[in-house]
Amino acid sequence: MSEPASPDPDASTDAEVFLDAARTRIDAYLHEVLPPTDGPSARLAEAMAYSILAGGKRLRPALAQAACRAVGGDEERVLPFGAALEMIHTYSLIHDDLPAMDDDDLRRGRPTSHKVYGEALAVLAGDALHTLAFEVLLVRTEPADLARQAALELARAAGPHGMVGGQVEDLGAAGREPDEETLLLIQGGKTAALLRAACRGGALIGGGDEREVEAAGRYGRHLGFAFQMVDDVLDVTGTAETLGKTPGKDEAEHRMTWVAFEGVEATKARAEQEIGWAVEAIRDLPGRALLAGLARFVTRRDR
Amino acid sequence: MSEPASPDPDASTDAEVFLDAARTRIDAYLHEVLPPTDGPSARLAEAMAYSILAGGKRLRPALAQAACRAVGGDEERVLPFGAALEMIHTYSLIHDDLPAMDDDDLRRGRPTSHKVYGEALAVLAGDALHTLAFEVLLVRTEPADLARQAALELARAAGPHGMVGGQVEDLGAAGREPDEETLLLIQGGKTAALLRAACRGGALIGGGDEREVEAAGRYGRHLGFAFQMVDDVLDVTGTAETLGKTPGKDEAEHRMTWVAFEGVEATKARAEQEIGWAVEAIRDLPGRALLAGLARFVTRRDR
Repeated sequence: MSEPASPDPDASTDAEVFLDAARTRIDAYLHEVLPPTDGPSARLAEAMAYSILAGGKRLRPALAQAACRAVGGDEERVLPFGAALEMIHTYSLIHDDLPAMDDDDLRRGRPTSHKVYGEALAVLAGDALHTLAFEVLLVRTEPADLARQAALELARAAGPHGMVGGQVEDLGAAGREPDEETLLLIQGGKTAALLRAACRGGALIGGGDEREVEAAGRYGRHLGFAFQMVDDVLDVTGTAETLGKTPGKDEAEHRMTWVAFEGVEATKARAEQEIGWAVEAIRDLPGRALLAGLARFVTRRDR
Repeated sequence: MSEPASPDPDASTDAEVFLDAARTRIDAYLHEVLPPTDGPSARLAEAMAYSILAGGKRLRPALAQAACRAVGGDEERVLPFGAALEMIHTYSLIHDDLPAMDDDDLRRGRPTSHKVYGEALAVLAGDALHTLAFEVLLVRTEPADLARQAALELARAAGPHGMVGGQVEDLGAAGREPDEETLLLIQGGKTAALLRAACRGGALIGGGDEREVEAAGRYGRHLGFAFQMVDDVLDVTGTAETLGKTPGKDEAEHRMTWVAFEGVEATKARAEQEIGWAVEAIRDLPGRALLAGLARFVTRRDR
């Protein structure tokens, strides 16, 4: 039986198939590296598993795998790094959802960590995932120099000049008149930094040369901005059911978003522009077709 | 001019001199590696500096330097690792002090981070120090394999099977009848794991062989228990002024401590025993005198 022809000229079917396979690989790997829930500190292990095994899209590990393949590498090698990315992402979601931060009750369609385990354990489950990310990556990536480089990509993207810095800017910007510079600073840190690191690390571990790692990083950064723009749009147009989290929060909290800055349509156009730049950045990579398809697919999501 | 003879037969003067020098070294180094408070995310940088430059004893970086010297290494080489230890320790203090955790208003003689910067920024300042610890250590330790090994010592000691695991046990044990096994689990994680890692990492980076690294680690672990026992005693016998934090909290919160388990005198005797074991563990190290002096000095503190 022949496969039906893809109705999508930009290979979004291939992207979807790849994303599914990448998610299956990383989910299996995460089960392997998380602490057992029947050992010591069982409640901590349970809280860690609750948040990270809640069935996210696994975009960051998938991008790492795609960037690895795009430079000719074997994506199995990048699973420790992918698991670390997902742990860092999940820790940040747990902490962001805390009452003192965004005070969110719903995440990935389920009650947030502190609603289930209480605030203290939620803080600690986030902390534990944060540390475990570095442990898993450093133990399981060879050789040592590559492990170090990949861990540095992760640390720089997650730290005060990346994800956490962006979160602080976001908190400080609430209620202020939106401006482009601040939006780039917030979302460059909160989202684009980690997607950039996912792609750089994937290309690095896949054996890419400096030029290829740079190209993958630019792609990831543009994709990160596009992704966040789509997220801003969905917060206005989506429902709790389709989003798996509470919609309308951005406006309710006077958060600085692209939609608040220039409206839904202009934000959609800006996202398209970012995707164009992302695709342009990887024009010389051997495996550019997969990355280009992913860029279009993940920003066309309705959730 | 000749130096006056030390009045202390176990060389506590030498220990005190070493601790002062080690603290000066690490304080200067921390200033160098912290993000500038006049750059982007200035408030985050300020919150990070507020907590880590609050003038702690720097016990962990000092032990790393001492273990490095004890195997014949140059303590300058261990400063990135020492800074990472202090960042991990400080992040854990910031998070432990949060209202949802120990709800403490005073730390190192000053208002706690969330009292000054609010809960959201306190959570994020802790997170940022946590990530920066790995960045500083990995960027600044050579060669790559040693950087990886040291980062793994840190991650294992700080993560779900170490510090964070101990903190979770501590929360779960509050109000329960004290027992030795649980106390060893709590304090093995909360305190002893990081002191063990400090000594193992110091010996590693100092060029120690496997046997020396093991010995330094056993020393650190016993010292960690002794230190925590002294801390439990001081919570009963100290004042806010001498402690720099609120005393009497353990009992008020029905926390499981050695003092609750067997009283002040028996806890002091147990701490002495741990110090004896710590000193015994390093009997074959070339630089054992300094480590032995430190063990006696830091557990004889009145604050």
